[in-house]
Amino acid sequence: MGENDTTGWDPLPRSRAYELVVQAIEDRIANGSLRVGDPLPPERELASRLEVSRAGVREAVRVLEGQGVLRARVGSGSEAGTFVAALPDEALTRFLRLHVALSNFPVADVVASRIALESTAAASAALHAGTDAFDEIEVLLEVMEQPDISREDFNDADARFHIAIAQAGGNRLAASLATAIRGALREPLLRAIVSASDWDDVVTLLRRQHREILAALRARDAAGVADLIARHIRYSADVLPLD
Amino acid sequence: MGENDTTGWDPLPRSRAYELVVQAIEDRIANGSLRVGDPLPPERELASRLEVSRAGVREAVRVLEGQGVLRARVGSGSEAGTFVAALPDEALTRFLRLHVALSNFPVADVVASRIALESTAAASAALHAGTDAFDEIEVLLEVMEQPDISREDFNDADARFHIAIAQAGGNRLAASLATAIRGALREPLLRAIVSASDWDDVVTLLRRQHREILAALRARDAAGVADLIARHIRYSADVLPLD
Repeated sequence: MGENDTTGWDPLPRSRAYELVVQAIEDRIANGSLRVGDPLPPERELASRLEVSRAGVREAVRVLEGQGVLRARVGSGSEAGTFVAALPDEALTRFLRLHVALSNFPVADVVASRIALESTAAASAALHAGTDAFDEIEVLLEVMEQPDISREDFNDADARFHIAIAQAGGNRLAASLATAIRGALREPLLRAIVSASDWDDVVTLLRRQHREILAALRARDAAGVADLIARHIRYSADVLPLD
Repeated sequence: MGENDTTGWDPLPRSRAYELVVQAIEDRIANGSLRVGDPLPPERELASRLEVSRAGVREAVRVLEGQGVLRARVGSGSEAGTFVAALPDEALTRFLRLHVALSNFPVADVVASRIALESTAAASAALHAGTDAFDEIEVLLEVMEQPDISREDFNDADARFHIAIAQAGGNRLAASLATAIRGALREPLLRAIVSASDWDDVVTLLRRQHREILAALRARDAAGVADLIARHIRYSADVLPLD
């Protein structure tokens, strides 16, 4: 590993102190020398080993706590201190939602990424998911088929439908990414739905496409459902253009 | 939008104050009412409107600065203050690298997600990338074909090869995700490469697969290169099992 010592805590070159402490902790997590549940060295010891101020360590810990990477535990003895936490999938969803909002990705990029992730997940769901997963998806279709459903409630149920398919695929990483992207699209899609002048026609077609997708899942038709998902996402992007 | 006022800053229900401030700022970014370059209200005003302490606001700002979402600017008058920043793609890479390390995703999930994103990107690169992108990819192949290359240098050039293909596809979101996943695999893959007893045979096959991928890109064979990338990633996962 060359000059990256993976176990020690060597002094850091100068820069903004807390950023370097954040980087040092992240590197140890990424290379596996700090794992979920491991304690961080005490603040004073870490400051001394990295040759930064205790304030710098404190600030870095707070930033990583804010991201859900570290968690403080009060108590006495070895029970107390700062520990590496298991990042909840929700943390990725929130971060990616911000990233999509701030990075201003072209809509075509978001659509193509959704298709790649969701069609893969749907194909896997067709092969591996239990029928109970399909029953749960059908409940969401029934919600969206209520004649008097509001556009906002339709959008929420639609997001849950796409997330349910991604999760039924059994791939947690792909489901996290697909969930995060659909979550990032919640508000822009709602704006598009609210301003659609031909909503009655659009919603009729969306409902039919959802039914076809569910039928392909139940028929265990992996290639078919991947294709239907791709066409459904492309249709939605065409008729509900995002700003 | 019901009870979510997207423009005002209404008082928050009680919880950990800074988390609620973070959430309030994130929500405004996600729904588009705070955009890149926009200033945050002054600390005192934000604390008063959200009905939290100024310390809570300060802590939230620091957490979001640590994530790259906000940036403090010194100066005088309207030039100074805290502004919404454009999240660099590198921030997503770092976050996802942590997420993959901490969430302990099954290797099969990571492999399937890589295949979904990289084969889509490669197919797009075959159709749309310029020949200069392929020339840059070829330089990386030549690096990996040096007979005395170290395993660590091979791994680094291999990561750059996969990232270059993802970027040549022209989809910034898919490239960010693929880059982040390959970045998260850097250290585990290096451990697998270092401990491979049949490395000479493995590297010979990897080099041949890389050449086939480049040839398919230059031949503008989108379906072919997607299939080659998928098989290459699956082969790599088989012969270089991650711990």
